[in-house]
Amino acid sequence: MNLAPRHLRAAYRSGVLKPSDVVAHVLSRLGDADQSGVWISTANPESVVAAARGLDARLGEIDQLPLYGLVFSVKDCIDVAGEQTTSACPEFAYVARETSPAVADAVAAGAIYVGKTNMDQFATGLVGVRSPYGIARNPHNPAYIPGGSSSGAAVSVATGTSSFAFGTDTGGSGRVPASYCGVTGFKPAPGAFSQRGMVYACRSFDTISLYTREPGDGYDVYRVLARRDPEDCFSPIDFDGWKEQAAPSRPLRIATPRADQLKFFGNEETERLFASGLRKLQQLDMSIASADFSPFTSINDLMFFGSFLAERDVSVGEFLDANPDAGVKVVRDLVIGSRKFTAAEAYRALYEVKEVQRSLRDFWQVHDALVVPTVGTVLRIDDVARDPLTANFNNGYYTNYANPLGLAAIAVPNAITGAGVPYGVTFLAPAGRERLLTDLACAFMGAVAQP
Amino acid sequence: MNLAPRHLRAAYRSGVLKPSDVVAHVLSRLGDADQSGVWISTANPESVVAAARGLDARLGEIDQLPLYGLVFSVKDCIDVAGEQTTSACPEFAYVARETSPAVADAVAAGAIYVGKTNMDQFATGLVGVRSPYGIARNPHNPAYIPGGSSSGAAVSVATGTSSFAFGTDTGGSGRVPASYCGVTGFKPAPGAFSQRGMVYACRSFDTISLYTREPGDGYDVYRVLARRDPEDCFSPIDFDGWKEQAAPSRPLRIATPRADQLKFFGNEETERLFASGLRKLQQLDMSIASADFSPFTSINDLMFFGSFLAERDVSVGEFLDANPDAGVKVVRDLVIGSRKFTAAEAYRALYEVKEVQRSLRDFWQVHDALVVPTVGTVLRIDDVARDPLTANFNNGYYTNYANPLGLAAIAVPNAITGAGVPYGVTFLAPAGRERLLTDLACAFMGAVAQP
Repeated sequence: MNLAPRHLRAAYRSGVLKPSDVVAHVLSRLGDADQSGVWISTANPESVVAAARGLDARLGEIDQLPLYGLVFSVKDCIDVAGEQTTSACPEFAYVARETSPAVADAVAAGAIYVGKTNMDQFATGLVGVRSPYGIARNPHNPAYIPGGSSSGAAVSVATGTSSFAFGTDTGGSGRVPASYCGVTGFKPAPGAFSQRGMVYACRSFDTISLYTREPGDGYDVYRVLARRDPEDCFSPIDFDGWKEQAAPSRPLRIATPRADQLKFFGNEETERLFASGLRKLQQLDMSIASADFSPFTSINDLMFFGSFLAERDVSVGEFLDANPDAGVKVVRDLVIGSRKFTAAEAYRALYEVKEVQRSLRDFWQVHDALVVPTVGTVLRIDDVARDPLTANFNNGYYTNYANPLGLAAIAVPNAITGAGVPYGVTFLAPAGRERLLTDLACAFMGAVAQP
Repeated sequence: MNLAPRHLRAAYRSGVLKPSDVVAHVLSRLGDADQSGVWISTANPESVVAAARGLDARLGEIDQLPLYGLVFSVKDCIDVAGEQTTSACPEFAYVARETSPAVADAVAAGAIYVGKTNMDQFATGLVGVRSPYGIARNPHNPAYIPGGSSSGAAVSVATGTSSFAFGTDTGGSGRVPASYCGVTGFKPAPGAFSQRGMVYACRSFDTISLYTREPGDGYDVYRVLARRDPEDCFSPIDFDGWKEQAAPSRPLRIATPRADQLKFFGNEETERLFASGLRKLQQLDMSIASADFSPFTSINDLMFFGSFLAERDVSVGEFLDANPDAGVKVVRDLVIGSRKFTAAEAYRALYEVKEVQRSLRDFWQVHDALVVPTVGTVLRIDDVARDPLTANFNNGYYTNYANPLGLAAIAVPNAITGAGVPYGVTFLAPAGRERLLTDLACAFMGAVAQP
């Protein structure tokens, strides 16, 4: 059953389907083999059915319910009232008293919650294997990682058990799994979604993200849910998710990293696939220009090797101290290891990021968007086991800088490797160009689909 | 000779004075006893005279030169090309290659630079005694401190050797000396002035400030000089110094700290003087309401006892390490001592400040401005020598929170103690209410002047 938002909505309107048909299908699917490692908990089936039946009776309100009958999953670092939040650490689990505002708004808009998804513990990883709840099975080749940290979120969409999925994105968690699972990851600039009711990774720039099958659907859900939250001190006082820049009337100008700044970590196949994606893009009515990528990557080290890690310590360090046996070792070591960073280093990092933002203002005047590979190479579970830190860091080469720099991003499929693993690209731009990025991603997908 | 901007401008227009008369007077004054400890360096007199003569010849352009013929001093942590910047540490001195944009704009607007003023070393202090260049003599009672860190700036205005003075303000340096010297200290919200060409204290929220004799003049100079600086990564991309809130048509609503939250550190005289100031304010057409002051003071400890100190280490720590004999001991100890703060503590401080900002949004909806004593008590030089840290911290009780919270402030005289020392009040409000604060301060001064 195709759960994609536009498809479902059309089916509901025409009466071909009703929400209770869809949830019956989804509930029947949750035990299937392709759901292995995807869910940390699932909603009470009776509640899901009751919610669906309630919506069945409200079909007449579909115009007022923009997410009517859409089934969604929630990454398990985001709160749903009455459900456990584990952040993929069983000892950390608590029953949430309130639902995160973005999730609550989704329910109010007619969507149906089905469960909490697996992830790299404490959202600390880009691999999807750092969880005591197993590895969400890559739907295309189970020898490969699903990508992380929002692994279960991406797989729930890829395998058709969610119309859309709430993930989060700090250093790339809302994009890397999109590449590995062949779906779309839409990540707004930080601030568009409330941060309340979630376990923070780096509270300064964490953002909730959305996974969907089709590139246009993530944006549509974003438009419904993005809003200022006066209760969240990181919600920008002037946020207006609809104050978007109009698309220019001239052909778009897209930047891509200079050839010598691209990294595929020795994988000639992914290098070829990205080049082929660029050629598809060039066939569209837009200009593609090589640009200096170094300002972006200059701040990457801060994410998993620098002072940004200390924000994770603020979030979960006290818990780790009180529970010396809890935590996946590589995650615990990263968080506790951040205690070597001084306050002076944190302020230096802040200045550095501000200066890079400033230095890129011209870049964003010249270029409408940046296109990069979502990841440099595709990693097998074995590869990550062999060298967890390098694998993780390599997966973030094209993603780490985006949130500190305040960029929005959309990660979409580009090609399939010989091993059958999807391999995607990401379009990035400053806040206010979310629509432009989405249209670009849709146009790219159209070009990729051509023979 | 009255150097106040409005007065001088009228005298220039009427032909009673010309700029070269004024600089001749000022140059003749720089060696007077009341200038003791005020100047770290003074401009080459020939250059000053030449600049004044150039302006004499341009009287016809006075309408295009909003600061025509005004004489100004520059706190010695701000760069003037070709002059030494010491930040009150002789070993730190360097000859500046470029002039700070705010100072350069002042010269371009017709103002005349006369010298660099004394200060608490590295702008680390609110007392004005932490300098190897001596203590700028308090013009009202030399047994008392001038207040700091912008001590020489305030004294240069109070003693009539500057029409206006550039100070800086991090934790109160643009306000405390105004109280001790009986002048006006105007401090915009951080971001209004470029931060380029200065020695940072806390780069995250340092701001240049202005001292003037009359409360309206600081605002007028601010209006001329405030602008976005695309070269400064802390200059807000949307800064518009003129997008000010219109004053409400109803009577103003002024908040003042609840009685139990006022601190006068045992000084019954200053307590009485503040109460009398409040009564003067109540005679005007406005309402005065007691309000909870604790959200403001809750972040004070971060300034001189918390992780904010580490920003000073980023600024001058390397210098202090390389020059183990340089630096006033109390300043050196504070800066080096900040190395005990971790990155996690810096991020906690960031979250705390953000949360206080959020929690105060309602406060600023209800209240147009906050009025506080500028300092709790008036300190003698002896008092500070006895306990430098407590004295300094006490001086910041009403000032430390303002810049982290993004507030603008104007400090004006209120009364004179029995010892002849001025004792002032400060009005504070969020960015965009600078004009309202200035009008309020002018109205208050008018009321205070009544018998």
